[in-house]
Amino acid sequence: MSFDPVDLTAALIRCPSVTPEEGGALSLLQTTLEGAGFHCVRVDRNGTPNLFARWGEKGAARTLGFNGHTDVVPVGDAAAWTHEPFGGEISDGILWGRGATDMKSGVAAFVAAACDYATQNQPDDTAIIITITGDEEGDATDGTVALLDYMTEAGEAMSDCIVGEPTCPNTMGEMMKIGRRGSITAYFVARGVQGHVAYPNQTRNPVPALARLMAELSTHTLDQGTAHFDPSNLEVTTFDVGNPATNVVPAQAVATVNIRFNDAHTGASLSEWIRAKAARMAEETGIDIEVRFQISGESFLTPPGRFVDLVAGAVEKVTGQKPVFSTSGGTSDARFIKNHCPVVEFGLVGKTMHKVDEHVEIAHIEDLKRVYSCLIGDYFS
Amino acid sequence: MSFDPVDLTAALIRCPSVTPEEGGALSLLQTTLEGAGFHCVRVDRNGTPNLFARWGEKGAARTLGFNGHTDVVPVGDAAAWTHEPFGGEISDGILWGRGATDMKSGVAAFVAAACDYATQNQPDDTAIIITITGDEEGDATDGTVALLDYMTEAGEAMSDCIVGEPTCPNTMGEMMKIGRRGSITAYFVARGVQGHVAYPNQTRNPVPALARLMAELSTHTLDQGTAHFDPSNLEVTTFDVGNPATNVVPAQAVATVNIRFNDAHTGASLSEWIRAKAARMAEETGIDIEVRFQISGESFLTPPGRFVDLVAGAVEKVTGQKPVFSTSGGTSDARFIKNHCPVVEFGLVGKTMHKVDEHVEIAHIEDLKRVYSCLIGDYFS
Repeated sequence: MSFDPVDLTAALIRCPSVTPEEGGALSLLQTTLEGAGFHCVRVDRNGTPNLFARWGEKGAARTLGFNGHTDVVPVGDAAAWTHEPFGGEISDGILWGRGATDMKSGVAAFVAAACDYATQNQPDDTAIIITITGDEEGDATDGTVALLDYMTEAGEAMSDCIVGEPTCPNTMGEMMKIGRRGSITAYFVARGVQGHVAYPNQTRNPVPALARLMAELSTHTLDQGTAHFDPSNLEVTTFDVGNPATNVVPAQAVATVNIRFNDAHTGASLSEWIRAKAARMAEETGIDIEVRFQISGESFLTPPGRFVDLVAGAVEKVTGQKPVFSTSGGTSDARFIKNHCPVVEFGLVGKTMHKVDEHVEIAHIEDLKRVYSCLIGDYFS
Repeated sequence: MSFDPVDLTAALIRCPSVTPEEGGALSLLQTTLEGAGFHCVRVDRNGTPNLFARWGEKGAARTLGFNGHTDVVPVGDAAAWTHEPFGGEISDGILWGRGATDMKSGVAAFVAAACDYATQNQPDDTAIIITITGDEEGDATDGTVALLDYMTEAGEAMSDCIVGEPTCPNTMGEMMKIGRRGSITAYFVARGVQGHVAYPNQTRNPVPALARLMAELSTHTLDQGTAHFDPSNLEVTTFDVGNPATNVVPAQAVATVNIRFNDAHTGASLSEWIRAKAARMAEETGIDIEVRFQISGESFLTPPGRFVDLVAGAVEKVTGQKPVFSTSGGTSDARFIKNHCPVVEFGLVGKTMHKVDEHVEIAHIEDLKRVYSCLIGDYFS
């Protein structure tokens, strides 16, 4: 028996699962997985739908995990689509629709591969755990986190995990992710004293102080990159005053900074650095500068070793390409899984993700299933 | 015959002449001045009401000018006033209403002084020219400028001019203005390339470039002040991006800078300095930085000499105070008059101008008329 990942992707696309809607996607997967012998539990939390599935015994010595999401970003300009966003149409070897690359195809590929294996093999102190969330594109507070919380409580554990997000910039197989940078956002409020520009002694302008602070932060070299990471990068994402009067010194200015950081830093070390810089500028200028932080994720790395090599080997066997070990790009749910077990990411080419006319080559879905099948076989051999 | 400046101020306050409304104020003054033998011409332009008045012959060897405005700023929070803003009420030696200090009292004082002189003397190659506009508080493009244009065309000229704006910070007679700083506003637009913060190589962030430019401009010392001027002062009045997404590098940032500058600079020299700084930052950062300028006025000075001394002498005779020669504060219509003849400013205490419950001590109005009367007498003696 062989499960068809293309049919499954198309069926998933027809489920309108825009975050946080379940749209029938998890139900469809549960039916498929249960049909192949998986034990399934819906782990919904605060309205976010999540699915846990295991084949084999709890606590098996070798438990391979797969993680993904069925929620998708909104359609955007629906009139601009040349194919029905939730139609799952196939033409000339292309499957069209929202979620075609991000990441219903990835979910379909590992579910199909796992179902093939489960229906053709007996567990031998081996298990496969599949966790699928309905909120990766949103706040992600009750998605993969809820699944991991459930697993901890239920005594479920993975030995290693692979996330099926798109990882290849241009050609199938060229890149996998063995870590991710961390992300911290700093929100600044600078407060001075408003007044007329002609009487500067009666005012204290917060804008130059904040501009100087932003200039200092953005010209500082955080690092030169580390063994597996690009250099950390700081961006001033906004700076706002909103004063329309050219003869008035404003009372307040705000700015926001986001840093994507490698393993030379932590959220705490960067907070401390920024706080010290802000305090020093406040002291120099007499402007009150308040800063608060939001740490979306720490950086992490699954160092090259047995698991990374198994995944890379499977990719190379199927695609003929030796994948680059990357830690670039945004964040993914791997940032939560890394606290539970080694985690890597491999998926298809993500060029059209989040765009109008999102689509995927059906050959890529089939290749991706082959990679995951190869990995499962190698992992348990 | 003696003209009462307090009655005239109260009558003017009862004319609701919020810019650009004439409100009956100029008609009232025209009637008063014509009654005292002045030749009057309404010089309205583009809906702005203006009044020209001359006593004595055109082209007289000694022609003393007075300038002022009858328009007022809006009432603001009408409910917060304890006296009718356009009522002209007097109680306990105080006259209340919008324009009480800025500057219906000043206009009434010099009109009363000039009418006294005109009705008690014969011209002797002497003349008094009074120019009063209904738009000083607004754009001022068709106010005193229109009056000066009319005078040039009609062959009318002043030897010297005094503007009756409030000039005293706290006590009557303590300060006169012998010049004003210039004002230039620079509007910046910095353009980069938008994109995701996680892929900095695909973006060019305009915010740090603009922040660095603002930091450089605002920490530069323009000068230490000059003989009659405070140091020039630069303020960054606004800085705006308006990007709510912390994971997006914005495409554009704007900022505005206003400089109040002394006679060590000109609008042209400051434009050139800013343009060079912006070009250098653009070159360093690869960010396109556009800047355009608005020069509201150049700095000017009427150096101490005969006319300044006459005014100062009149002030001291009446108030017992030797006035400080100042060039501080905002702009006034003196910035236009200085192109035609030497100009100084003297008026009463301006504490409540533009505020709720604007008011003036009637003793100050009477003193101010005495100063102007004394000046006229001394000027023609």
